[in-house]
Amino acid sequence: MSVTAAQGFRASGVVAGLKSTGKPDVAVVVNDGPLDVAAAVFTSNRVFAAPVAWSRQVVADGRATSVVLNSGGANACTGPEGFADTHRTAEHLAGVLGTSAGDTLVCSTGLIGERLPMDKLLAGVDDAAAQLASNGGFLAAAAIMTTDTVPKTVAITGGSGPAEPGAPTWTVGGMAKGAGMLAPGLATMLCVLTTDAVVDSATADAALREATRLTFDRVDSDGCMSTNDTVILLVSGASGLTATAAELTTALTAACASLSRQLVADAEGASHDVAVEVVGAHSEDAAVAVARAVTRSNLFKAAVFGNDPNWGRVLSAVGTVPESVATFDADRLDVSINGVQVCRAGGVGEDRTLVDLAGNREVRVLIDLHAGPATATVWTNDLTHDYVHENSAYSS
Amino acid sequence: MSVTAAQGFRASGVVAGLKSTGKPDVAVVVNDGPLDVAAAVFTSNRVFAAPVAWSRQVVADGRATSVVLNSGGANACTGPEGFADTHRTAEHLAGVLGTSAGDTLVCSTGLIGERLPMDKLLAGVDDAAAQLASNGGFLAAAAIMTTDTVPKTVAITGGSGPAEPGAPTWTVGGMAKGAGMLAPGLATMLCVLTTDAVVDSATADAALREATRLTFDRVDSDGCMSTNDTVILLVSGASGLTATAAELTTALTAACASLSRQLVADAEGASHDVAVEVVGAHSEDAAVAVARAVTRSNLFKAAVFGNDPNWGRVLSAVGTVPESVATFDADRLDVSINGVQVCRAGGVGEDRTLVDLAGNREVRVLIDLHAGPATATVWTNDLTHDYVHENSAYSS
Repeated sequence: MSVTAAQGFRASGVVAGLKSTGKPDVAVVVNDGPLDVAAAVFTSNRVFAAPVAWSRQVVADGRATSVVLNSGGANACTGPEGFADTHRTAEHLAGVLGTSAGDTLVCSTGLIGERLPMDKLLAGVDDAAAQLASNGGFLAAAAIMTTDTVPKTVAITGGSGPAEPGAPTWTVGGMAKGAGMLAPGLATMLCVLTTDAVVDSATADAALREATRLTFDRVDSDGCMSTNDTVILLVSGASGLTATAAELTTALTAACASLSRQLVADAEGASHDVAVEVVGAHSEDAAVAVARAVTRSNLFKAAVFGNDPNWGRVLSAVGTVPESVATFDADRLDVSINGVQVCRAGGVGEDRTLVDLAGNREVRVLIDLHAGPATATVWTNDLTHDYVHENSAYSS
Repeated sequence: MSVTAAQGFRASGVVAGLKSTGKPDVAVVVNDGPLDVAAAVFTSNRVFAAPVAWSRQVVADGRATSVVLNSGGANACTGPEGFADTHRTAEHLAGVLGTSAGDTLVCSTGLIGERLPMDKLLAGVDDAAAQLASNGGFLAAAAIMTTDTVPKTVAITGGSGPAEPGAPTWTVGGMAKGAGMLAPGLATMLCVLTTDAVVDSATADAALREATRLTFDRVDSDGCMSTNDTVILLVSGASGLTATAAELTTALTAACASLSRQLVADAEGASHDVAVEVVGAHSEDAAVAVARAVTRSNLFKAAVFGNDPNWGRVLSAVGTVPESVATFDADRLDVSINGVQVCRAGGVGEDRTLVDLAGNREVRVLIDLHAGPATATVWTNDLTHDYVHENSAYSS
């Protein structure tokens, strides 16, 4: 599992002292090749962190050999000095590994608006480089956690179908962190995926974009977009097996879907995981827009926390989507919650008391627009006392 | 004060039994003329309640003589039967008053997706009609409350400047309710304004739209848009004094600003009132869009609840506004919170611990985009435990 599930990778996670808790806070992932293909997608926030600015440059040529990640500080809104800190971190790791800073990706996560303690960070990078191991994926996953309560990892066997026993296979491994500030643009704050399949950089880039579009981009925990969101794919080719574009896309999508689901399940303070599925839309974009409007309704999300199947709040959220974005007739909308059709043709349907939310962590809201064939599902969480608590006390 | 502050109006508020608490829940406002000019603006939600559908028709000719309002039920998402209930309510009041249903506006507020108990409501309308009085404005304001803790009322003396003592004046009176689901499109759920100035319907309509654009449309308590939002202006002309378009707009804007501020101060569960002021924008729309992005950030609002001047969350919200909407350079953004410039040129400014949020209910966030001359302010509240509590338990 994790980033070392694929062949050709080593990883590590260490305590550098960036976190006041004394928990692991620096991770390194190294691609030992033979390929050094890389792709990445970043937050679309116009206010982005220094490591995002740096890593965009690094991956522009479709190549990278390592990633250094830290929790305990986002290095965002830190000006030219913050960018210099990121540059210095990459130079430092490259120096230790004998590689190039220009092939060294950097990711940071934590509080915005504070400089990183560089002496501790660089000593941590030395330590992490010394501890790199082909079974280090779990330690790396643990070192990137912030308010996550568990590490998120995945391993997917690629190919065109079930492999014969003993037949050679290629693998996608991955780790992610991000229990808050999950929102579109990118859902997770940090994710590193690895594969030992043989693919070129154009294929890797296209597959990663499609996989994230269908998974991380459809998780919206609290409507807030991060300054640091980064999803990286490193390709070692160490299996010697070539993956087709379709095969890689399928495997990456499965890996990202698993990690996305883990992020939702561990979102800050949540007591319910909510899947909002829109069917009958005239286009996929329309379905996503309607689902997203519901996942962003604080009133609906607070009702779910209260185990209240308040479908009126679903409809009032759906109704905020402009006609230019989603075609529908308000008098034809149907809404089911966990299988009970509480709203029929825009009006009262089955008895809402038939819906059991108290007994289910997972809530499925199904909205039928009766306007076409397209569908989409967006995941979110309920709005809870614990969410408010964690996010009101986070920086103190 | 309230809707009877202006001459030519009577109002009342009674207990009809729609609320389980036994508190007042039906209000009537009557315009005794001599004019019967009316204007109204409604929610832009595509899912709108039966009384909104009805009242849009009534006011289309710029005339109305009375308003009947109920709390204890929104009559939204209730299908053709719900519309028939609204129609019947208007017919009933018109029958009692000897007026026309086609001049009778209807407003409802409360839970979505439930039919109103018509026997109780119509008996309440009889009662309210019998109790109409020229000093009934406060009782009417109390009868439209839902989770509001206090009635919201206003009275503004109109004119071109301070009047000579004893000189004749005209007045704008008003009442509003809406402690939750405050959002753009319209901020309040229900508001009735009255004036005894002499104006025509085109002037009334234009002045009301401009006043609401600058006030209710710039309050965004929780980002959620109601199905029932309605702001009505009734013009009696009873003062015999003609108001110019500019004078009426000024007086209505002052009245709406006062009511908006009262709504924010009484928003569900809030412990801080937050004014987000954007300056240096290239256009007013850009300033509003940036301010709105910040007022909708759950992370920022939870931080305010925790008395944490977390300017990084301000910047990460600002950064979500597309370049096509607001021009700015992320490296030039300045942010002050209650006068302390915590962010300078996109980076760390003054020490954030200098900001005292614990000692102030009012929080002023000033964002300078350094991109032009335009400004705008949007009001919101913090995100609190009590908000979650009230909105998770509301329908049960």
